Amino acid sequence: MNTPDELARLYLAAWNEPDEERRRELVARTYTEEGTYLDPLMQGGGHREITAMIGAARAQFPGHHFRLASAVDAHHDLARFSWELAPEGGEAVARGTDVVRIVEGRFGSVFGFLDPVTASG
Amino acid sequence: MNTPDELARLYLAAWNEPDEERRRELVARTYTEEGTYLDPLMQGGGHREITAMIGAARAQFPGHHFRLASAVDAHHDLARFSWELAPEGGEAVARGTDVVRIVEGRFGSVFGFLDPVTASG
Repeated sequence: MNTPDELARLYLAAWNEPDEERRRELVARTYTEEGTYLDPLMQGGGHREITAMIGAARAQFPGHHFRLASAVDAHHDLARFSWELAPEGGEAVARGTDVVRIVEGRFGSVFGFLDPVTASG
Repeated sequence: MNTPDELARLYLAAWNEPDEERRRELVARTYTEEGTYLDPLMQGGGHREITAMIGAARAQFPGHHFRLASAVDAHHDLARFSWELAPEGGEAVARGTDVVRIVEGRFGSVFGFLDPVTASG
């Protein structure tokens, strides 16, 4: 059973995986079968849809990577963490905070919010 | 139908209401019948339990008030906002961020997290 920290790392690994089949495997390790994702711009439910959703988002930011930008703050069946999207060695172009509900060791729901991108990086 | 902004204000008004009956009315305007609250320290489900939970929390901080400490950031059926707890005219002694799921104009679920309290107030 993965810890919230491990799940957050698997989750970001999925966002960073260019190969669709490997990405689907990471999504399956991260989300329950019925797992859902919802942020201001995108939504998906189930492994196939979430895998495709991430692929579509990745296509808009070639050469960029998602990275964890906070500790993973977990209690009960909940966790939150912040991420940022940046080009190799560069400043973040997007940031966000996700709140997740964990069901039997995987994400059952991801509620995503976008954070301001400040000049301080 | 209340907007997310109005719901956040009703929600904080309930936390600030000393009279149990008036607090229960505010809780009923804020939460669905089955509405749930979960943070690192407290949990409750339904109007009666949430009303009592808030009363118990209030008893630990006499003379303090909850106030909104951010904009209300809403999309789809989700919203998030930050709050702080402070004595009249004083510095915050606690802060947090709540993520809520809105169901037919009231909070169906509140997922609460505690934020660091920094000296900058």
